Amino acid sequence: MDEQQDIGPKIEKSFDLVGKRWTGLIIYVLMGGPKRFTEIHTMIPYLSKRMLTERMKELEEQGIVVRHVLPERPIRTEYLLTKKGTELGKILCQLSHWAENWVKE
Amino acid sequence: MDEQQDIGPKIEKSFDLVGKRWTGLIIYVLMGGPKRFTEIHTMIPYLSKRMLTERMKELEEQGIVVRHVLPERPIRTEYLLTKKGTELGKILCQLSHWAENWVKE
Repeated sequence: MDEQQDIGPKIEKSFDLVGKRWTGLIIYVLMGGPKRFTEIHTMIPYLSKRMLTERMKELEEQGIVVRHVLPERPIRTEYLLTKKGTELGKILCQLSHWAENWVKE
Repeated sequence: MDEQQDIGPKIEKSFDLVGKRWTGLIIYVLMGGPKRFTEIHTMIPYLSKRMLTERMKELEEQGIVVRHVLPERPIRTEYLLTKKGTELGKILCQLSHWAENWVKE
């Protein structure tokens, strides 16, 4: 890597993004495939619905997640990772492998 | 990935670690090779010496960084990434590439 040159606001932004409470985990969960709101909620313990709503909105705004309303009654919504989100998710999967190998509980 | 099963405290911990203010950036900088305290300080703008000292201590405790005292006068210290730290650094380099490609300033 080209040291000095590469350190910039974009990189900091990406580190912040991954580290933001729940964000990394939500992306990681969506790597398993599109999920409905309640499914994500079930898979991440301790995350309140209000907080999940907030985070999903942020991820939508960042172009990482797309919200898809299913043409059904009652209305159901599912969340999908965009290309941008999937690329980030791949890196988070590697980060989780690193954690498995190196982080002590 | 094996969804449900893989979500655990280790993964959350690794997401937190990367996202902790300056930590990701310090590891990223050290991927360029061992550095002295003042070199790291110069390369990361806005990071105070007091904060850098604190972060380096944390990284040492986590086994990510090793502090090496050079047998010289005046005493000089350099910081190196361990194997654990280097593996994490590789992932952070990928994260920075992702940011370059996808994050708007």
